[in-house]
Formats: sequence, structure tokens, C-alpha cells
Amino acid sequence: MAIHQLKPTPEQYSYVFGGAKPLLSVKPGDIVEVSTEDCYGGRVDSPDDLPSEVVPFSELNPVSGPIEVEGAEVGDILAVHFVSIVPARPYAISSTFPHFGALTPTHETSMLANPLEERVWFYDIDLEAWTATFRARNSDYELSLPLDPMHGTVGVAPASGEVRLVVTPSTHGGNMDTPEVRAGTTLYLPVNVPGAMLSLGDGHARQGEGEVCGTGLESAMNSVIAVDVVKGGALSWPRLEDDEFIMSTGSVRPLEDAYRISQTDLIGWTSELTGLDTLDAYQLVSQLGLAPAANVCDPNYTMLAKLPKWSLKSAEAYGGVHRRLRAAAEDYSVR
Amino acid sequence: MAIHQLKPTPEQYSYVFGGAKPLLSVKPGDIVEVSTEDCYGGRVDSPDDLPSEVVPFSELNPVSGPIEVEGAEVGDILAVHFVSIVPARPYAISSTFPHFGALTPTHETSMLANPLEERVWFYDIDLEAWTATFRARNSDYELSLPLDPMHGTVGVAPASGEVRLVVTPSTHGGNMDTPEVRAGTTLYLPVNVPGAMLSLGDGHARQGEGEVCGTGLESAMNSVIAVDVVKGGALSWPRLEDDEFIMSTGSVRPLEDAYRISQTDLIGWTSELTGLDTLDAYQLVSQLGLAPAANVCDPNYTMLAKLPKWSLKSAEAYGGVHRRLRAAAEDYSVR
Amino acid sequence: MAIHQLKPTPEQYSYVFGGAKPLLSVKPGDIVEVSTEDCYGGRVDSPDDLPSEVVPFSELNPVSGPIEVEGAEVGDILAVHFVSIVPARPYAISSTFPHFGALTPTHETSMLANPLEERVWFYDIDLEAWTATFRARNSDYELSLPLDPMHGTVGVAPASGEVRLVVTPSTHGGNMDTPEVRAGTTLYLPVNVPGAMLSLGDGHARQGEGEVCGTGLESAMNSVIAVDVVKGGALSWPRLEDDEFIMSTGSVRPLEDAYRISQTDLIGWTSELTGLDTLDAYQLVSQLGLAPAANVCDPNYTMLAKLPKWSLKSAEAYGGVHRRLRAAAEDYSVR
Amino acid sequence: MAIHQLKPTPEQYSYVFGGAKPLLSVKPGDIVEVSTEDCYGGRVDSPDDLPSEVVPFSELNPVSGPIEVEGAEVGDILAVHFVSIVPARPYAISSTFPHFGALTPTHETSMLANPLEERVWFYDIDLEAWTATFRARNSDYELSLPLDPMHGTVGVAPASGEVRLVVTPSTHGGNMDTPEVRAGTTLYLPVNVPGAMLSLGDGHARQGEGEVCGTGLESAMNSVIAVDVVKGGALSWPRLEDDEFIMSTGSVRPLEDAYRISQTDLIGWTSELTGLDTLDAYQLVSQLGLAPAANVCDPNYTMLAKLPKWSLKSAEAYGGVHRRLRAAAEDYSVR
Repeated sequence: MAIHQLKPTPEQYSYVFGGAKPLLSVKPGDIVEVSTEDCYGGRVDSPDDLPSEVVPFSELNPVSGPIEVEGAEVGDILAVHFVSIVPARPYAISSTFPHFGALTPTHETSMLANPLEERVWFYDIDLEAWTATFRARNSDYELSLPLDPMHGTVGVAPASGEVRLVVTPSTHGGNMDTPEVRAGTTLYLPVNVPGAMLSLGDGHARQGEGEVCGTGLESAMNSVIAVDVVKGGALSWPRLEDDEFIMSTGSVRPLEDAYRISQTDLIGWTSELTGLDTLDAYQLVSQLGLAPAANVCDPNYTMLAKLPKWSLKSAEAYGGVHRRLRAAAEDYSVR
Repeated sequence: MAIHQLKPTPEQYSYVFGGAKPLLSVKPGDIVEVSTEDCYGGRVDSPDDLPSEVVPFSELNPVSGPIEVEGAEVGDILAVHFVSIVPARPYAISSTFPHFGALTPTHETSMLANPLEERVWFYDIDLEAWTATFRARNSDYELSLPLDPMHGTVGVAPASGEVRLVVTPSTHGGNMDTPEVRAGTTLYLPVNVPGAMLSLGDGHARQGEGEVCGTGLESAMNSVIAVDVVKGGALSWPRLEDDEFIMSTGSVRPLEDAYRISQTDLIGWTSELTGLDTLDAYQLVSQLGLAPAANVCDPNYTMLAKLPKWSLKSAEAYGGVHRRLRAAAEDYSVR
Repeated sequence: MAIHQLKPTPEQYSYVFGGAKPLLSVKPGDIVEVSTEDCYGGRVDSPDDLPSEVVPFSELNPVSGPIEVEGAEVGDILAVHFVSIVPARPYAISSTFPHFGALTPTHETSMLANPLEERVWFYDIDLEAWTATFRARNSDYELSLPLDPMHGTVGVAPASGEVRLVVTPSTHGGNMDTPEVRAGTTLYLPVNVPGAMLSLGDGHARQGEGEVCGTGLESAMNSVIAVDVVKGGALSWPRLEDDEFIMSTGSVRPLEDAYRISQTDLIGWTSELTGLDTLDAYQLVSQLGLAPAANVCDPNYTMLAKLPKWSLKSAEAYGGVHRRLRAAAEDYSVR
Repeated sequence: MAIHQLKPTPEQYSYVFGGAKPLLSVKPGDIVEVSTEDCYGGRVDSPDDLPSEVVPFSELNPVSGPIEVEGAEVGDILAVHFVSIVPARPYAISSTFPHFGALTPTHETSMLANPLEERVWFYDIDLEAWTATFRARNSDYELSLPLDPMHGTVGVAPASGEVRLVVTPSTHGGNMDTPEVRAGTTLYLPVNVPGAMLSLGDGHARQGEGEVCGTGLESAMNSVIAVDVVKGGALSWPRLEDDEFIMSTGSVRPLEDAYRISQTDLIGWTSELTGLDTLDAYQLVSQLGLAPAANVCDPNYTMLAKLPKWSLKSAEAYGGVHRRLRAAAEDYSVR
């Protein structure tokens, strides 16, 4: 197990998935210490900096990568375990953004009505207390929120030679914006090109389900990931696993179709793991499953479907890769 | 505080919200012990009874009521606190149903492809152990699931003289099918006609989020509710409160519009309770909110938006009616 | 063939489908001369009258009826042929309306952004020239538009005892807002209660497809209809027929589901009329069908699916009832 | 005005928009005679060849191009006028396809129900009679349909370095599948990269609105196009113009959002051309506009919004480029 660093220089950041040369090459089982910039490219310095004025559209949501994983072949699964995700600055930023977010006219839900006001919030990050402090802009309401750091954008090169903007989640992962991509979670992504070509960014110090205003507590991050490759087993959509749940995702519009994809995928996965036939697995997921929104603001919406692992009895996904990566993460942490 | 019983006879069950004479009249603060039939009208007696064959469409999902609440006037809020919900039979039933559920062509998502197979599952209910036992139909997989009893259908007479089928959730409540309507929760419904005219049914011994196959663990219930009236404060959509969360609902299609309604409503509610302006409340809900699916199978889909009550500081919804009903429920329970 | 008049007094107008006593009783084959009020209840008298201020919500979109058709039994089809539709006033009115229309936040597509400005346009109606004159409010642009009068709202009592607001189109017809309901068209509606209980209103001197701003050229109308009953043949959704096309409708959200319903229904109808199996009918409709939007603003959206009648060869829908009603209409007109 | 030929060899066909080197370079005002392959890559030779078996997924829907247009700069508009589109083989092919089409479970509208049967239809093309003959597969129904040849897929390199599969329509054009792209129409596309990089394919001998089964009368084509560049005037979405209508498009899901985009765009265009303010233009489009579905089967759905040009009075789009290209097309045709 080697430990690598990836600290991109400003000009090394990437704004698409696919088509790029790797910044780093690692082996299955390796660990990468990676720094990521915030979704504003670090250009919002105060609550008076309106993102739409200080950040060129083409420089939104930079990602760090790609990272090539040697031996990952088309049809394999890339397992990315999040060892730790730690805010890199003493503040995080959130904002509305013209024509972005679930509750304002957007480019996709196009209307003649005016978009919402653009407003910026700065949160103080206290790593000791593990909190972020919300301060209202228009009153003196203040509130300390627990940190729950995550990466909104994690993905690989798409299939069929496509190159996709970082803001669009799809089968290759991307900007799924689910709070489940936190330390302790393993994300499974399809390998569509040799080496998989993993990139990540868009750290949030925390985020509500649905990311309704369009942003979380946007934060540069110092993160550590462990990567592995599961041979074969081609995924249709990204999946996740933590100690308690297996989780499927769907990223598409309308939201019910994102729900349908995530549920269909989870039912198939459950069927494979338990030997239940499709309808019996449908029944089990119907009664035990959780279905939180991830994002309802990006070009594709993302839903999650979660099943508690105790319901799988002794079955383990992908030969226990999550368990092994979890153990490797602990070894790394206690070095 | 009076205690009433409502045990409808078969011919007293109702299949619509609105337009019906009350079966019972109670006062604000009263408690009602109510029995409800399962969604199959009690006609499915074994896994070999296909619901589409043994239950006439017009007798699906019977509700108990209406209950008239004296003094409830148009523009008031009816508070319904669930004191207890206890399965009334030693089994619960789930099934697929032709042209119903999220993962099959339906009457609304109409297709030429054939619908899924209809299949019935019987679960053994063990009240002592507080479990329901899942038994696969096509293998020997068996699993004991914790009970989490709820009512899928709770509503009042709609506004403007409308009469709506029990299966359709909307502004009047109805078939929202959210697992949050469990013992310990207070449901707030708009009062659209004098006396509110509350009905409830569709008990589930438990249900996953989204009710993806179209049914939960359908169960006749012996339930106890406490009702109260909040004067004024006209609701646009049903809201809920338990000890930890305030929750808004939206029931419409597509699912992102149900999400939008629930979020908009929760933001407005948060703004009222905290004094935050709309955008500041939008920000807080964006970072702290939860957004689980309730149902993605009924004629309208239902999303929930949840905010932890600690973020409201000392503010209490509706003058603390939830807290008072919770206390009354405890008094009732320890009689 | 009897000729009836229905000229409701202001207090006789109806605001729901279902649950009302008939204003008139007619026999199959009869003709009814019916007057309808505009969607504003005749309360908007000048471009300075904002509808949201002068029309109570509960008095929007009055309909004339119900008309009971003797002998119409549950499971039959009511055929309503439009003999003539003539604007009753020298002007028609259009407007935006807060929280209504496709390009503004609405009650269903709920947002925090402000709704569009409310604005009213008066059109001069010239029956001689058969034109309506558009006058811009904010410039001197003027344009003479051809009249194409239609009824936005035509429906019957819903099934299962439901009572629905006039603004919501569904399986019972209602506010479908398709320009195809013009003179020369026969509308087929399901009979859900004895006598069918037909009501109509919401005349438009003309309307674009989709009714994107939420209103057409709203106009009181003097209309003549001929009604007939097709025994049996229970409809799932309203259908239309004119001299050139058979047409199916679907009214639901999202819009693709309205499309799916209308297409599925048209394919089934085509299959019945031609003997093609379902897939062959799917193929024919795929290559010859038209698919215009009707409304994308009402509580349910409506799509139409149209197939040219020449493709049906000699087949006639419902035993030629459209042709017979067309002939009766000509007899009436030349009296 | 130069006349070019583009007859790609099999290995020259392209399956994406963006990222490719041009096969041909032309100047504004030039004409290109271009041959295109059918969407099956010419691999379906008889009704017994199931597309899912004989065509690799990665070789569906080949396009001819890219064609570089010299002098086209980012922010310009590429005008593509269709001079003629003529079926190149004596037959056209249509089919259902597993998990594709509006009335079957698909990858996006994912379900557990089985997809529809795959079936292939061969149509005889008679260029003299200008007809295609439909033959039912499961009965002896035969019908002669008028040809109305069109290109389903026409687009340019996307913005921001994206590379998109040919099957996905979006802001760069692509697989919009509207029957309006016929001879006599000018298509306006945004120029996102120097030279625009135009590709086209997916000819249909005719197609219904919505392309409900997922395919038209798929046909290799011999087409002639004339290209021009409008300096400046950056488009958000593709637009079209023929002798009667200006037309806007929107390609996204759900279908109402495609409708919203197309309507918003048409209103803006109308406002520019007439000097009407936004709300007055909204009003005019509401009353005169047409709104047919283009496709309801591709990864993004496409709606069209059409306004008759007589309503624009003397205004001409883009300085009359359509009129000039139309004239050039006539010159070419009478050579």
C-alpha cells in the first residue's frame, strides 16, 4: 500500500469528466491524500463577492484529478473509500446563484419570472468543536451546525468517449451531491476506460438532502481516499456502501425517474446478494428501504435508495471490499 | 377530555374525503379510539387471494370517519396526535397490484408493456416481540422486521366542495403514505369545512420510504388519536411534528414538484418560527433539512421536508400544541 | 330531435363537476343552445381590472350545466358535437394571473421567486370579419388574429362519487383547454353516472397550443351542441373526432405521462378500428400521429394524440356517430 | 458558392458531437451534398434482423461530419438550410427496440416490468410516387404513406469541451428528432467552437410527432444542405425557420421543461423581432403559437414552439438569411 499526494496547482484543475490525461497514477489498494478547491474556485472571499460576478462560469466546480488506477479495465468496478474529509479553510461558503437551485427559475426549468436574489453566507469552521456557524444575513440569528464533510462531485471518465461537464451527475458519477459520500463510505463507480480516471471535488462541510438552494457549505478539503478495483461486475449506476447500508443511486430527470433507477438498481443488487427473486427483493426493499433526495438542483437530479445491511444476513457486497478498505483506512489513520 | 370509540361496521366505511356525514362528533382535546380496516377491506385471506380478483376497485382503502371536531372552522388547523397504532390481526399483507407501484406501467404512466406479476406476501405479526416476519415466496429467505406502525391515509374534507377518492393525497391530506405518521407524531391538517371531517385508515405495520411496490405491510389497526384545533393559521399543505422534527409535505406530480412544495412550505414555516427572512430560512433548510420520499406510487407523489427542532431554538409551532397533546397521550396511556 | 335552451342565471353557474342536480334534461339526438360566461365570471370589465382582485377564486371558470342526457348509463359514451361556438360580447379578454401559467412559479411548481406581473389584454371581436384584434399593452403593436372559437372546459360527473373543481382536467374531461374542441368536432366522454351530467364553459375566441400564459381569448359564448349516446364501449379518457382526425387525450402530470396516456389510448383505438395488433398499431401511430400540447398550465396538463382518418380506411368510430351528428348540425344550421 | 461532397466511408462515421477532426471544410454560403447512413448503420437487412442483435450499441445512429465552416466563431450562429433530403435506398426500416421508446420501460424510466417485444417493419420507398408502404407484421393491413423526409440528428460541437453521444439532443442540437428538419427549413445552431463542426444523420423518410415507438422510417439519405454564418447573436437553444414559421426548441426532461424552454425562447425571439415587451410577446405567443412534440423517447425530450411569421409583420430573423438560403437552394436545384 503506497500513499500518494495530489495537490493540484490552479491550472491543473479540471472541469470535465473524460478525455483528460491523469495527474497521478496509483495501484489498487493505494491511498491518496488529495486536496480539493471549493466550487467557487476559491474566488469568493467575502459575503460581498457575488459568485456570478467573481467566478467565470467555465471555472465553477473544479475537480482534482484524474487519478489513473492501474489495472482497472472496462467493465470493472472502481471502489473509492473515503478515509477522511477535512475542511481546509477556517470558513465555508454557501450562496444562492441566479438560475440555480430548486426554488427559482433555471436554465432547465425556464420561466419568464425573475430569478431569486443572489446572496452569500460565510460560515466559521471550528475543526476542534467540529462545527460550522450559520449567521443570518438579514437578522442576528446564529446557529452552530455539526460538521458532516462530504464530496459533492466524484466520478470517472464516462463511457463511449463522452466528456461531461463536472456539474452533471450521471452513470459515471459526477456531481451527485449526496451527503452519503462522507468519511467511512465506499463509493463504487463503473470503469469505462482503462485506468478509470477518477476525479473529485466540491467538498461540503455539510449539506441538507436535496441541496435545495443549490449549494452546501462549500469548502476546500484535505481528503484521504483508498482505492481498489473489483474485477468484473459492470455497474449501471454508482453505488455506495457504509457500515450500515448498501445504497444505489439514480441521476436523471424527472425526480421520479431518478427514484425509479435507484430503486431498480437496489432491488437487483439485493436479489444478487440474497438469492431472492426479483419480486421478493422488490418486496423487501419496499418495506425496509430508505429513499432520500441527494440533489434536486443539478442538471440531473439524484435520488438514493438505501437498504440496511442486516437484512442481507451474511452476504457481503463485492467480496467484502468495503470491510477491507475500512480496515486499511484505520491502519492509515493510526500510523 | 372525553374518550370516544369509533369502530365502523363494514357498511360504514368511507372511500372518499368530503361530502359525507360524520360518524362521530368530538371536542378539541378529546381522544378517539378508532379501529381501521386494511387497504384490501379485509378481503385478502391468504397469499393465494389476488387483490385484483377479490377486492372490488371501489372498496379499496376504506377509511374510518368522518369525525367531526366541534368548533373547527374554515381557516383553522386540525391537530391530530397519534397516541398509539397497534396491528389488530396476527398478520399483515403486502402485494404488488397490476398497474400500481413505481416500477411497473400504471394508469398514469401508461405503457404498452405488460404490468408486473401480482404477488401477495403474508407477514406474521408478533406484538410481543414487536416484529413482522417476511417470508420470500420464491425461496426460503425469512427475515424478522421491526414493527413501525403508521397510517397511510389521514385527511379531512377538501376545500371548495371537492370530493376526492381516498387513494389521492393532496392539500387535504389523504393517502400521503409517509412512515412519519406514527405514534408520537402530530399531523396538522387544514380545516376546509366546519368540523374538519377527519377520516383515517390504511394502516401499515411498517413501510419503506416511497412505498415502491405500492403497498406497505397492510394491516387493520387499533389506534388512538388525540385531536385539537389551532385557531387561524390556515395551512396550504399538511404538516407534521414529532419530538425531533417539524415536517412539511407536498403531494403532486412530478416528484420534483412535490419536493418543491414541501421545501417551500418548510422554509416559510421556518421563517415564521425563527424570524429569519425567506432567503436566510432557505439557507438554513438547505443545510440542515432532510428530504425523504413518502410515496412514489399514488395518484399524487408525496415528499417530506424535515428540519430538526433544535435549530429553531426556543420557538414552538402553534403554541406548543404538539407538546400538550404528547402529554395528554401519556396521561391517557397511564390511565 | 328537440332543440333546448340553457341560459343559466348568475346563481345557476357551477364550479365543480359532479354532485349537482341537472339544470336541463335532454334526449340523445337533441340539440342544446347554451350560453356560457367567460372564465372571469364576466367581472373583468377593462384592462385595469386585475382578475386576482375582482374575481373571487371560488368564482373562476363558471360552467353551464349539468345537462342530463336521458338513457345515458354508466359505461356508455356521451358524444357531444359542437355545432357552433360564437363569441357573445364584442371583446375577449386575456391575462396573466399570479401563480398561474407555464412560465411562472405556481402552486404546483412552487418556488421562492416572485411570480410574473399580472396584466390584462382586451381584444376587439369582429364577428363579421371573424377576427380578434391584439393590442400590445406596452407598445403600439396591433395585430388582427383569426377567430377559432372553442370551449376550454367540457366534462361530465366523475366516477366513484368524486366531485372535482372545474379547473382540473382528468378522465371526466373538464378543463382540457384544447383548441380542438371547436365547431365541427365531436367530443366523446365516459358516462360515469346515470344521465352523464354534462357541463361546459370557458370559451376562448382562440388559443395557442399549451395555453402557455394560462388563458386564451376568454369570451362568453353562444354555443350550440348536439348530444348523443353510444351504448357501451366504456372510455378510459376523453376522445375527439372531426372530419379529418381521431384524437385521444391524456390529462395528468408530468407532461410526458399525459403524452403516454394519449398515445396509448390512440394506439388502442386504432387497433380496434383497423384490426391491427397492438404493436402494428403502435407502429402506424408512430409514423402518422400528431402530438400537440393542449394545456401546460392547469392542475393536470393535457396532451393530444391525433391520427388522420384516411389511415383507418373504411373504419368508422362508434358506428359513424360523428358523421350523423355532423349531418344533424347541418340540418339545424339551415333551418 | 462552392458545392462540396461528403460521402463518408464506414470507418469515417462519427458517434459523438464534439472532439473530432473535420472531414470537410467549407465556407459560409457553400453547398454540401452529403450522404448519411440509417440509424442502424445499415446493418438491418430484413424484418428478421433484430436491431439489438445485429447492431452494436456503440454503432447506433452514425452521423456524417464534422463539417468545419470557416469563419464561424464562438458566439456566432450557424444556419443550415436543407435543400433536399432524398431516401437513398428502396426501403426504410422502423422497429421497436428493447428499453427504448415512450411506452416501454427504458434505461431512464427504469422498471421491473418486461420491455415490449422487439419488432421490425420494412417500408417500400417509391420516390416516383413519393410514398412509403406500411405493411403490418401481424395482419394484411397495408397503407401507403406520403414521404416527408427529415434528419433526426443535426448538431454541432457542444460548448465547454463536452463530447456528447449522438443520441442525446441538447443545446448543441443533436438527436432532436423533429419532423420540421425537412427540405425548405433552415436550422440555426449555436457556434461553440471555431468552425462550428456540423454533423448530421438519422434520416427518416417520415416520422410522427413524438417518435413514440422510438424510431421513424429510418433511411439512408442523399441530402443537400446550404450553410451560412450569422455573426454574433449567440443562441441558447437551436431554432428553426421555414417559409411559414419561426420555431424554437427545448430538449430536456421532464417534457414540461422542454416545453418551457421552447416557449421562453420563442417569446424572447418574438420580442426581439417585434419590439414587444416580454409580457406582450408572451401574450401573442400564447394565442398564436403551436406546440408539437418532437421526440418523447430520447435521453432528452424535445418540444417545439412555433409562431406564424405573418404575426411578425415585416420583421425578418437574422437579416433574412433563411430567404437568401432558400433562393440559393433554388439556384442549386435548377442548375
